[in-house]
Amino acid sequence: MRIRTIEWKNKSVRIIDQTALPARLKYLELRSVSALWRAIKKLQVRGAPALGAAAALGLYLAVKDSRARDYQELKREIDRAADHLGSSRPTAVNLFWGLKMMRLAALENRNKPVAQIKLALLRRAKEIMKEDSSVCRKMSRYGAELIRNNDNILTVCNAGALATVDYGTALGTIYRAKEQGRRLSVYACETRPLLQGARLTAWELKAKGIKVTLLCDNAAAALMSSGRIDKVIVGADRIASNGDTANKVGTYNIALLARYHHIPFYVAAPISTFDLSKRTGKDIPIEQRHAREVTHYLFKKPSAPPGVAVFNPAFDVTPHSLISAIITEKGIIKPPFAKNIRRTAK
Amino acid sequence: MRIRTIEWKNKSVRIIDQTALPARLKYLELRSVSALWRAIKKLQVRGAPALGAAAALGLYLAVKDSRARDYQELKREIDRAADHLGSSRPTAVNLFWGLKMMRLAALENRNKPVAQIKLALLRRAKEIMKEDSSVCRKMSRYGAELIRNNDNILTVCNAGALATVDYGTALGTIYRAKEQGRRLSVYACETRPLLQGARLTAWELKAKGIKVTLLCDNAAAALMSSGRIDKVIVGADRIASNGDTANKVGTYNIALLARYHHIPFYVAAPISTFDLSKRTGKDIPIEQRHAREVTHYLFKKPSAPPGVAVFNPAFDVTPHSLISAIITEKGIIKPPFAKNIRRTAK
Repeated sequence: MRIRTIEWKNKSVRIIDQTALPARLKYLELRSVSALWRAIKKLQVRGAPALGAAAALGLYLAVKDSRARDYQELKREIDRAADHLGSSRPTAVNLFWGLKMMRLAALENRNKPVAQIKLALLRRAKEIMKEDSSVCRKMSRYGAELIRNNDNILTVCNAGALATVDYGTALGTIYRAKEQGRRLSVYACETRPLLQGARLTAWELKAKGIKVTLLCDNAAAALMSSGRIDKVIVGADRIASNGDTANKVGTYNIALLARYHHIPFYVAAPISTFDLSKRTGKDIPIEQRHAREVTHYLFKKPSAPPGVAVFNPAFDVTPHSLISAIITEKGIIKPPFAKNIRRTAK
Repeated sequence: MRIRTIEWKNKSVRIIDQTALPARLKYLELRSVSALWRAIKKLQVRGAPALGAAAALGLYLAVKDSRARDYQELKREIDRAADHLGSSRPTAVNLFWGLKMMRLAALENRNKPVAQIKLALLRRAKEIMKEDSSVCRKMSRYGAELIRNNDNILTVCNAGALATVDYGTALGTIYRAKEQGRRLSVYACETRPLLQGARLTAWELKAKGIKVTLLCDNAAAALMSSGRIDKVIVGADRIASNGDTANKVGTYNIALLARYHHIPFYVAAPISTFDLSKRTGKDIPIEQRHAREVTHYLFKKPSAPPGVAVFNPAFDVTPHSLISAIITEKGIIKPPFAKNIRRTAK
């Protein structure tokens, strides 16, 4: 089954509404920047690489009906839309990378008529999506080399087709290994508070015919100590130049548990996830999300007493010392990370 | 506010229905062994020490209207009820301890008329409850010595008044420290799948006027690395003779994270929680619970695709090497545990 998370269709950004999964596979057609902003904020579309594509299409949405008469006027609209989109999810660097790519495309075409610039922007957004597709597949070839027959692989959150345009980063390596004929099984941490592991990863793996077992995040240590896990593969939302990796909250937990149990811990992420302007993970901004995500299950029934204080960071930072290797489309980056990232990601 | 989790009232076992919290403080009056068995299974009453009291009252329920004519006939009924009650939660050793205490009471009174034996059983069950109350308070005095002013304490699940007859083990030490004038704040891991931390611990701490912050279990590593946690205090469901501790799933996770972040990790449990017949944690049976606890939030709406496999142990085992000390009513047991537990718990 081909999963197409985000695409340009019917003059709109068509996305899978990830908040409707696993109950329904429902598509949304977004026709304005503000609709897209809301969809990003509500996590109807999420996943670092998918957000890069969303940002790119979003900038095109912002200008496609513009009445700007020249590049300067158009640029002001682009800047405003980029600032707005950038405010939706501050941690995912791919989102900012997508915005930057689009601004560059506008700049490169600044001497053309506005209609031509608009077309160039749509072309660039489509290239970014195509590139994401291709990057995931390249990455998966490197990652699949790390996977042996009969491996049991633990993952957190969703770094699959639903986190990218259509193939996945961490899960992409698993799809590739399966395509190459290896048998494997995945353990998916459910990933509180919003259960991306239960709702998205379990759904996606089942759709792709891969054996999946779900667990609560806090059962990971028991699972590892039972000897059932051979390796951990996760995605990333932003990687600092020393290899410190921001990813969905809980990733750092899992990395520590993996270290204690002598289980290799891999990060799979496109080069666009690296932020070389950040020296270490301490410099990465961490989005704090609303208490209701924790106190009200999926925003409905309360499961905690009213008014209770909540600690709800969307991400945590895994120190590079706990990471065995980073899988990218340019190959596998091993420690020492500071040196090897500089060489690969520049 | 006094919380009375379990008591003998109106010729029935009166419990707080813990599945109704935090929305409502609702009491149930259980008048048969099978009603009590169901209440235990559904976790309407839970917590290792409270289960000891429930088991004791349950055996009295089983015989109070018995038509047995002598000890032998009564004993057969007691044995049958004990086997039945023991099957409800295999990990909590206090439950078996409660059953054993009651059988002993019957044995001690075997030469009396059946009516007298029944009375002796009710008396013993009430003593067990009173003893639990007193044990928690003794334990809390030792535990409170470990707590300093302005401490931020992390806990998992619920080892409070709701897990005991009326005061708590891990949370009891916190109540005592507060009564002694210390300021402190508690971080409660929500404790998936059944959210005892969010539903019970947050409710109970608020009721007792203690500052509480809720977090998803997988945010604990981020919280610890922020430097905000001074110590961890948890309860226990069974402790092997070497100090390995079975407690709510996720405890082992937290113990590992605490070790990495150099945070002391304490277990608070009455002596009745020790099972000296178990050499290590490997010998402790771990209850596996139903997949629906994970896939259907509190048994209602599904949050995972239908039919997904689930790993859902109710407990995990924290190796003794990760435990700083065990707080009991006979004092604080420090490593080497094998030697010091033998000395204290025999």
